[in-house]
Amino acid sequence: MRQRIDVGGTHGYPLFLGVPLEELGPYLENRYGGKGHYLVITNPVIADLYSEKLLEGLKSFRVDLITVPDSEEEKSLDRISKLTEQALRCRADRDTMVLALGGGVIGDLSGFFASIYVRGIRYIHIPTTLLAQIDSSIGGKVAVNHSSGKNLLGSFYPPQAVWTDYTTLTTLPWEEIQNGLAETIKHAVVADPMLFDFIEDHTNDILNRDIKIMKELAMRSMAVKVKIVTDDEKEQGNRILLNLGHSFGHALETDEAYKGVSHGKGVSIGLVAVAILAYERNLVSEKQLERIVNLLTKLGLPTKIADRDPQILLQLMAADKKNKAGNKVLILPVGIGKASVANDCEDDEIVRAWKKIMN
Amino acid sequence: MRQRIDVGGTHGYPLFLGVPLEELGPYLENRYGGKGHYLVITNPVIADLYSEKLLEGLKSFRVDLITVPDSEEEKSLDRISKLTEQALRCRADRDTMVLALGGGVIGDLSGFFASIYVRGIRYIHIPTTLLAQIDSSIGGKVAVNHSSGKNLLGSFYPPQAVWTDYTTLTTLPWEEIQNGLAETIKHAVVADPMLFDFIEDHTNDILNRDIKIMKELAMRSMAVKVKIVTDDEKEQGNRILLNLGHSFGHALETDEAYKGVSHGKGVSIGLVAVAILAYERNLVSEKQLERIVNLLTKLGLPTKIADRDPQILLQLMAADKKNKAGNKVLILPVGIGKASVANDCEDDEIVRAWKKIMN
Repeated sequence: MRQRIDVGGTHGYPLFLGVPLEELGPYLENRYGGKGHYLVITNPVIADLYSEKLLEGLKSFRVDLITVPDSEEEKSLDRISKLTEQALRCRADRDTMVLALGGGVIGDLSGFFASIYVRGIRYIHIPTTLLAQIDSSIGGKVAVNHSSGKNLLGSFYPPQAVWTDYTTLTTLPWEEIQNGLAETIKHAVVADPMLFDFIEDHTNDILNRDIKIMKELAMRSMAVKVKIVTDDEKEQGNRILLNLGHSFGHALETDEAYKGVSHGKGVSIGLVAVAILAYERNLVSEKQLERIVNLLTKLGLPTKIADRDPQILLQLMAADKKNKAGNKVLILPVGIGKASVANDCEDDEIVRAWKKIMN
Repeated sequence: MRQRIDVGGTHGYPLFLGVPLEELGPYLENRYGGKGHYLVITNPVIADLYSEKLLEGLKSFRVDLITVPDSEEEKSLDRISKLTEQALRCRADRDTMVLALGGGVIGDLSGFFASIYVRGIRYIHIPTTLLAQIDSSIGGKVAVNHSSGKNLLGSFYPPQAVWTDYTTLTTLPWEEIQNGLAETIKHAVVADPMLFDFIEDHTNDILNRDIKIMKELAMRSMAVKVKIVTDDEKEQGNRILLNLGHSFGHALETDEAYKGVSHGKGVSIGLVAVAILAYERNLVSEKQLERIVNLLTKLGLPTKIADRDPQILLQLMAADKKNKAGNKVLILPVGIGKASVANDCEDDEIVRAWKKIMN
């Protein structure tokens, strides 16, 4: 079943769901005319699996394909510099459109590249992972990492459209599915108690990758994100709540130099940390904390980390984009299905939460 | 005399002209409140001359000052990376405002940094050179260079305000004044025949740096730019005409690896090249071509370059942001005071123009 959801706001754009990759070309022809230069940015793994299908539909255009190694480390200014060189060699100009075919890394990197190449060209997200489909492709956030912190350099630069072919989920490694599940659970904890129930009720179907359940899960999760980013395009209001768990998670990812801990695992552990912090502040009951930890555990997501110096992790949290006037800003769950911003978390309290999730 | 001109458009902002540096602080306090973190980005030369005056007015705020070496080469992604590190060390967050104190390099670099740091923070231009005052600080274009071409990476990111203290012109080296004069003559050729007459009538006053004449020159030149960028914020219409002379100029600057030829000299030579091209197309009369060359010469600006391989320069023009579908797009003068876009310039024609300006 095909669907279309529109992201609103001053720079709205459509999400096309359940649409085959090979039909993007005809859509582009219909929408932007039969001529044009398209620059597909992807990684070698995705290129092997899907570029043929995608290029099939793009035959009538001038198309160049650039692959970027498959690693979070590629979300860097160095890679932007290399892409610039490659794009110029392909004679990419202000009328060129970027097609970002891949997961969150490809989406964030290609979107950021599009936002600054010759002062900005258009791009379309073609998310191939659950995480990218339900989260990173929606909302126009683009960024690269910096050695001091994740996503430190970037902008709000919405795509022209998002083109989601669910069949890519069937080839996705389980670890990648887990990355998406962590964000879906986060969406549920932040804003949708019924989505939380739904996931609890279907853990086995999810573990079995039942495609019907996966699609419903993706749809519901997207709906949460679309609603929030439509109301708050530039993260000046409620959108910040979607960062639940990310302050802890990013610190962990930075500590591992983006290698050891996947984004989903970072978020999973971060979710537990903020749930513990919220529990200590009586924002979350013991039962609710348990439900969160149990659900993550059932889906194979980590809820503990190895023993390490919490002061180092605390220090890494200082580079968080949400921080204000030197104070750490954390998002805390309020029960399940609601969240709030806390500007008053003491370092002691944060260190205690870190310690509680250490083995 | 103080003046205020408002740049219009969806993201309008005021230019304050003839305002002392030390009064920026009180303005900020009045406008944004008594607290806040300001990050002054400048170079060591400017810092020596003006930072004391500026900081005097900012006493009540938390202020950090970062200096960047004084060179066009610093308009790079590497410098953006270093600034990110330094800004984090100063605990710069989303509420921090950047104050870009300097010429075009500082303005373009700091503005681009502000546009992407933690997905965008606010900034104010404090232009200290004639070039920055009349041109680069107006219109919200920010960018860094890439080894393949000038200003290849950047965006349209308007400042909160532009704060222009003309007294900085009194300490400006003559070569820097010339950079501004080249752009002023370009503004006149593109859109203001009376400004061209005014400059012709006052070459001696300008050479003597008569401050009254310099101010009028600056004011009139700004007026041209403000009008054009207000009508066309993102260079989708007439704003592109302001690139007159820049396709040739940028190639020259790139060829010299940004070292040998200053921006003003590049533009001066570029102006002559397009004027010759326009003359050959009967868009400019012999008399008009002469007037342009004579005026540049009188003000000590170059109109010729040393003999070199025009094919290399032609190749460098391929990285121009204006190019479309592999075709070079040039701006040509139409008489004096008007300009037009040409998509049909043959490489032969361009090479001929290059050859005519070689000694």
